[in-house]
Amino acid sequence: MGKGLVKRSEDYSRWYSDVIREAELAEHAPVKGCMIIRPYGFAIWEAIQHALDGMIKETGHVNAYFPLMIPESLLTKEAEHVEGFSPECAVVTHGGGKKLDEPLYIRPTSEAIICSTYAKWMNSWRDLPILINQWANVVRWEMRTRLFLRTTEFLWQEGHTAHETEAEAREEVLRMLDVYRRLSEEYLAMPVICGVKSPAETFAGAVKTHAIEAMMQDRRALQAGTSHFLGQNFARAYDMQFQGRSGARELAWSTSWGVSTRLIGGLIMCHSDDEGLVLPPKLAPYQAVIVPIYRKEEERAALLTAAEGIVAEGRSLGIRMRLDDRDHVKPGAKFFEWEKKGVPVRIELGPRDLAAGKVVLVRRDTGKAGKEDAPIEGLAARLPGIMDDLQQSLFDKALAHRLENTLDLDTYEEMLTVLNGDLGFVNADWCGGAECEAKVKADTTATIRVIPEEGGEARGACVVCGKPGTARPVWARAY
Amino acid sequence: MGKGLVKRSEDYSRWYSDVIREAELAEHAPVKGCMIIRPYGFAIWEAIQHALDGMIKETGHVNAYFPLMIPESLLTKEAEHVEGFSPECAVVTHGGGKKLDEPLYIRPTSEAIICSTYAKWMNSWRDLPILINQWANVVRWEMRTRLFLRTTEFLWQEGHTAHETEAEAREEVLRMLDVYRRLSEEYLAMPVICGVKSPAETFAGAVKTHAIEAMMQDRRALQAGTSHFLGQNFARAYDMQFQGRSGARELAWSTSWGVSTRLIGGLIMCHSDDEGLVLPPKLAPYQAVIVPIYRKEEERAALLTAAEGIVAEGRSLGIRMRLDDRDHVKPGAKFFEWEKKGVPVRIELGPRDLAAGKVVLVRRDTGKAGKEDAPIEGLAARLPGIMDDLQQSLFDKALAHRLENTLDLDTYEEMLTVLNGDLGFVNADWCGGAECEAKVKADTTATIRVIPEEGGEARGACVVCGKPGTARPVWARAY
Repeated sequence: MGKGLVKRSEDYSRWYSDVIREAELAEHAPVKGCMIIRPYGFAIWEAIQHALDGMIKETGHVNAYFPLMIPESLLTKEAEHVEGFSPECAVVTHGGGKKLDEPLYIRPTSEAIICSTYAKWMNSWRDLPILINQWANVVRWEMRTRLFLRTTEFLWQEGHTAHETEAEAREEVLRMLDVYRRLSEEYLAMPVICGVKSPAETFAGAVKTHAIEAMMQDRRALQAGTSHFLGQNFARAYDMQFQGRSGARELAWSTSWGVSTRLIGGLIMCHSDDEGLVLPPKLAPYQAVIVPIYRKEEERAALLTAAEGIVAEGRSLGIRMRLDDRDHVKPGAKFFEWEKKGVPVRIELGPRDLAAGKVVLVRRDTGKAGKEDAPIEGLAARLPGIMDDLQQSLFDKALAHRLENTLDLDTYEEMLTVLNGDLGFVNADWCGGAECEAKVKADTTATIRVIPEEGGEARGACVVCGKPGTARPVWARAY
Repeated sequence: MGKGLVKRSEDYSRWYSDVIREAELAEHAPVKGCMIIRPYGFAIWEAIQHALDGMIKETGHVNAYFPLMIPESLLTKEAEHVEGFSPECAVVTHGGGKKLDEPLYIRPTSEAIICSTYAKWMNSWRDLPILINQWANVVRWEMRTRLFLRTTEFLWQEGHTAHETEAEAREEVLRMLDVYRRLSEEYLAMPVICGVKSPAETFAGAVKTHAIEAMMQDRRALQAGTSHFLGQNFARAYDMQFQGRSGARELAWSTSWGVSTRLIGGLIMCHSDDEGLVLPPKLAPYQAVIVPIYRKEEERAALLTAAEGIVAEGRSLGIRMRLDDRDHVKPGAKFFEWEKKGVPVRIELGPRDLAAGKVVLVRRDTGKAGKEDAPIEGLAARLPGIMDDLQQSLFDKALAHRLENTLDLDTYEEMLTVLNGDLGFVNADWCGGAECEAKVKADTTATIRVIPEEGGEARGACVVCGKPGTARPVWARAY
């Protein structure tokens, strides 16, 4: 409790851990690389789930549940897929006190089990499309882990769909990428770039991986969601065949797409400041907290009555309000606590305020600078507007930050300076060759984040080799 | 598809599987004992989750998430607990391509990981109570599995709480048992008996296990939820200590409680009939389905317009409506399908009905006997009342079934006849001895389900040994 936070400028990585600890979002579990998501952090995940689950259902999908454990023989059917995932799997070798005949892999993702099941469900083209999502935990063995950003076990949703035609599958991939863009931008207030991954960064077994990428405050990139066009690769491996309209057997076209608890890591790094977490109102467990300030017991009752009135009014307008009436915590400590927890609006109410019919209202994003005296009359009615404004401000600020720190470059020398100095995203032409991409990675650790949907066309020569460009990707170091 | 169902009277066990298959609720996974919960089955689980999550939060709990994998050394700290669960665990021995230094157990339940974490969170009595729930998957190796009722992996919620005093912990245990009773009776329409388990059936490591027990249509019992008073056993094993009000270090008192996807098995066996699934309206993914009946294309448009009007009106009243406008499926096949899927109300609308301004309304519970012509005018407005009535009818019928098949017995001979003949629940005195309980199990496979909160007091002599009774439990064969 209360160890305080290091400044972003001093140690960005430690600051990130400090924000999580001080806001009580999560902590390390006894199992290496795993995390415990604490109630306050989990409430944010529930808000994300609620928003996204609604969008997934609105776009015609239903939820289901497939098993955690996958037989080795099933996982290994898609060669590229198993090559990509098998080395990072957790493997169950014993069950019920006995050694198993066949090892079971804890799902790192569920294409294998889901596609092999869909194969049984599709007889004719009338059974398509199959549009299913699941909310689940997955395990990928990680050597270097960070809370939310990269953990051995994480929570996610994974959508898996099967279609009659290639065009429908490609359309689905873009539809869900756009759902992820909306989730990021409209709920997390985190602007993202939509685009396509290079072959080196494509999902194991996919034909094409689309992604949304965001810029964090330290100008590094975060892949926040992916949507994969799997072509007929998994259909071939798992026998997803159906009788087509012509009567002939056809292979289905499939997709998969997912976002995870990693989004919470992005949320933290996108908006939080040296005082702690900053939450976009749409995802904040509490949107406004009222702290009554009294020294004498006889002041207490009147303040609580007034505060309860504001809470009730706010709630009736759909604002998630909390009255912090704890007696054993001093007001200053409460201010500090809710600041660290990123609550969008703090309302302070003391005896003098009450006598004057006002409160002190403090916005989390503007802090002391935005502190104002606000009349109690009409206060609750102002809150929805303040929430909208704060939500939009966070988005605008993050977008401005990205635009300011995105550079259009045409020389390799400049690119090295920018990427090695963590100075931002670089837009620069690429010939499409794996060698040039590998050279940049070797020289800077940066990778092609995406070839953006907008502005991704080549303009000139590959920044590495000088051959004609085939695309103009976004290059950056990434989490 | 369409293999049809065996009758309950012919083969109850096969009937159960048939209902699940025909309603597309779930199926067996490639991993022995695991299941795939199909979208229609999962929608029922989501409805249960939604109802229960609300009640869990209303009673002051918050959700969080703890890891799937538990180090062996942590699990083994509570001796009784590990003895009970260790033999049925799935064990991860390899991760990231290497053999692990210490095996990791897939959680069979999460007391170990959660209590050891709470120990870090509690410093003083002010940090208590800790009231947390998690929705998770757990794995318990099972030799004989049945979809929903007993699967190696299942979904559940597990609440874990820590308290300052014994009285608070005991109160919590009863509060959550009552939440489970309400969930079962008010949502699943499944009457339950609340009571306490015998020591032999008590949760490994608990002081006292409370449970809700329901009677299925074959007169066997189903344990539908448990709430455990853990005393200070887990506090001692996992060092859950805090500074008490007196300043001295004290051990916390803890509880845990859970219900699982097994509830869906109970739901099926409690209400369904030889035609298939019967769903209580509160948990039905669709509460009313409209099937337009037309032979000629020119009849189609007018019927669909009228049907859409009813759907819109029903939805505005909060009814989950579905218009089945599939062109390639004949009306009769649709009737059959929705019947098998247990939709509470079917509305048939043909050209003659439309001309007469009416529909044919069929309740799933009463079927042909309850078929009626209903005017379109005012139809939607009647639906909420029909849903309430149907919900109540299912409960009443199930309760009557249990009461009719519960026998008060005082001789062991009668008890053997009833239990071996699956003739119902038996209320009979028990001396409290493990040997008498074991003898009944050996002679009949029946067990003490609970010592009921109401009517559980001894009346005379132990039905087995003749010594004075200490309680009057409910004895039954169980799933």
